[in-house]
Amino acid sequence: MRMYDLITKKKQGGTLSETEIREMIAGFTEGTVPDYQMAAMAMAIYFQGMTREETAWLTDAMAHSGDTVDLSMFGKWTADKHSTGGVGDKTTLIVAPIVAACGLKVAKMSGRGLGHTGGTVDKLESIEGYRSSLSQEEFLAQVERVGLAVIGQTGNLTPADKKLYALRDVTATVDSIPLIVSSIMSKKLAAGSQTIVLDVKAGSGAFMRDGKSAGVLAREMVAIGKACGRKMAAFVTNMDVPLGKNIGNSLEVIEAIGVLKGEIHGDLRTLCLHLAAAMISLGLEMDFETALQQATACLEEGRAFEKFTAWIEAQGGNVEWVRNPSQFPGAAHIMPVRAERDGYIALMNTEQIGLCAGLLGAGRVRKEDAVDFAAGIVLRKKTGDYVQAGDVLAELHTNIATILPEAEKCFQTAVLIQNAQPEALPLIMERID
Amino acid sequence: MRMYDLITKKKQGGTLSETEIREMIAGFTEGTVPDYQMAAMAMAIYFQGMTREETAWLTDAMAHSGDTVDLSMFGKWTADKHSTGGVGDKTTLIVAPIVAACGLKVAKMSGRGLGHTGGTVDKLESIEGYRSSLSQEEFLAQVERVGLAVIGQTGNLTPADKKLYALRDVTATVDSIPLIVSSIMSKKLAAGSQTIVLDVKAGSGAFMRDGKSAGVLAREMVAIGKACGRKMAAFVTNMDVPLGKNIGNSLEVIEAIGVLKGEIHGDLRTLCLHLAAAMISLGLEMDFETALQQATACLEEGRAFEKFTAWIEAQGGNVEWVRNPSQFPGAAHIMPVRAERDGYIALMNTEQIGLCAGLLGAGRVRKEDAVDFAAGIVLRKKTGDYVQAGDVLAELHTNIATILPEAEKCFQTAVLIQNAQPEALPLIMERID
Repeated sequence: MRMYDLITKKKQGGTLSETEIREMIAGFTEGTVPDYQMAAMAMAIYFQGMTREETAWLTDAMAHSGDTVDLSMFGKWTADKHSTGGVGDKTTLIVAPIVAACGLKVAKMSGRGLGHTGGTVDKLESIEGYRSSLSQEEFLAQVERVGLAVIGQTGNLTPADKKLYALRDVTATVDSIPLIVSSIMSKKLAAGSQTIVLDVKAGSGAFMRDGKSAGVLAREMVAIGKACGRKMAAFVTNMDVPLGKNIGNSLEVIEAIGVLKGEIHGDLRTLCLHLAAAMISLGLEMDFETALQQATACLEEGRAFEKFTAWIEAQGGNVEWVRNPSQFPGAAHIMPVRAERDGYIALMNTEQIGLCAGLLGAGRVRKEDAVDFAAGIVLRKKTGDYVQAGDVLAELHTNIATILPEAEKCFQTAVLIQNAQPEALPLIMERID
Repeated sequence: MRMYDLITKKKQGGTLSETEIREMIAGFTEGTVPDYQMAAMAMAIYFQGMTREETAWLTDAMAHSGDTVDLSMFGKWTADKHSTGGVGDKTTLIVAPIVAACGLKVAKMSGRGLGHTGGTVDKLESIEGYRSSLSQEEFLAQVERVGLAVIGQTGNLTPADKKLYALRDVTATVDSIPLIVSSIMSKKLAAGSQTIVLDVKAGSGAFMRDGKSAGVLAREMVAIGKACGRKMAAFVTNMDVPLGKNIGNSLEVIEAIGVLKGEIHGDLRTLCLHLAAAMISLGLEMDFETALQQATACLEEGRAFEKFTAWIEAQGGNVEWVRNPSQFPGAAHIMPVRAERDGYIALMNTEQIGLCAGLLGAGRVRKEDAVDFAAGIVLRKKTGDYVQAGDVLAELHTNIATILPEAEKCFQTAVLIQNAQPEALPLIMERID
């Protein structure tokens, strides 16, 4: 293989062969294909695209570029989910115990938050004592015994993707569907689960701003996962408004516990039940409606909450906090943000609300930053609600009093109030099997 | 300037500003813009192109990225020519003394041969004693005194182009018109002449295979040179057949001397007179026909040959060889290649003939290779000639006897003989002012 010839082929709109793609990724991983050639290739792929076959080979090559997690001891009963990232998205905390309580094995690796989106590992670590680093043996033993474990990314998984993503990030080649698909799916394949359900977010708080492009991405990921032998489904869901009401690490855990205890209904609960039902339907091989009934029963009968408690306990978390969430340390300052006029909430710039939570201390700008578990936002009103001037729109929670004026301004400008009632967007915009 | 934003802008089809282009080239030259970002930019330029203004800014930025040659002491009387590279192209050896004899100043830097094309500096160095390295002072003093000097590329001229060309060469981004134009023209601008005449080759021995794309390139270069304040003209000329009859360093010098002495007519002489006339017409501000008459008179009256002799002598060359070219050392082996059948020569694969001369020792594959001055090919027949089986098509000159079978096969397969008389292609396909 001469990388030069591969760049030329792709530049001219040709199709790379499986061997060419595997050799390219092997060379890039070991450093014989230099960054500048891979950057030129990524830009050529941006313009010329890749066939589904090429994308599948690329995904598989990256999935096998380093360590992979061997879940074969659990047979076909392993299930994973992936969200493309949003604001207030604490679905893993609810979905994982539901599906584990229904009999699936959830061996999950999650990320930390960056920019305007939160990360599951940060949220879990807001529970006193939670250990997000387990050895491979501890991890698998807990999945065997409890049915689920959620840890931070570990080992040398998909080094080709890490290297390629870092390169795309500085060469303006992130927004290419085959490159996005292969990046996400290579990590999911390496993580080893047989069933994978995707939650592809669309809207102002998501990478994909509209449902159409999110649908394209979702369909590609489902096709590539299937081509690589996994059971796949995806939902395109609304991220034009934060999911649920709480944003910020311990605030989101508290809300998740509320859903698991049956105290909270609404968009968050609905989405979690659908994600869980898709995993159960594929993993336990039953129709979706039956799976949805089982997931709902599991939640309503308290079995999901029991599983959540067992999981947190197994990973060293303080279950007293789970049983009584008022024990989570609160922020020193809580400031209400009030409506400046009467009207309907027409728009919430969700990315900006995520960044506002970051200002309050809930997020990080750089990977090495620390997060403040107590910081965040509790929404009292959401898009479509009617408000009167002076009504509380949200509460800002922070330990940095000096940031409050800027954060309040940031939140106010993210919310548009007008006379006309806005059209309601569906929570679940599309389901792809 | 954030290079990321510039790549994004170009990728989306936007136009870079003058400041953005100048900062990008400055950053790339000093190393703050890494190769991988420039590779992504080059590929984005390949797909999205550049406006003429962008190309002019890029050219000017690269021209000023290092040293430039200050020819201001010669006022507006400086003239340069550039060929995009061909086989048998010894025009500089003839054109430079003609225009110098007519009163222009030719301060020329030339390259060495690589691949299938020869280089003027190699050809000149086949004359015993010729010094192609002069100090800046010697160079300018000779131009002042003799009217012309030709040296190898010297100093830190256009380092941005050197770096970008090397990067394009390994990232499959050579074939982009704005990048080709800015690479060639930045070097010409840095070399300092006020009049620049281009010979853009089209055909099987040229980078541009057809007259149409060569015309596009020629028009762009003329426009960019004018935008940067130079007097410009270009010819698109036929490189579907070698120029003249001799290929190889001393063989080409001998042929050039033949033209200068008035002994050789034909395509080479015609093209040289046209290139010289364009330079004289622009440089001395007269109409083209008058300039062509002056150039022809200069050649016919022997003044061009006198100027050639004075130039070679000034640079240390053995003028006895110039006066009596039989003194050039010949190759040890001269082998005739004969026609295998009767018919017309319909095609000569000119790149392959150039590579055949390379096999014989006349060229180099890598920059650090040495060339054999005596090696090369003397054509006895060219495209359009009728031959009978057994007629000598060419003579192969070499000091490596063992290469002769391979070289003969290479030459034979480069020449197509068939019954039908081929259509004659014009030597000069287009003239652009």
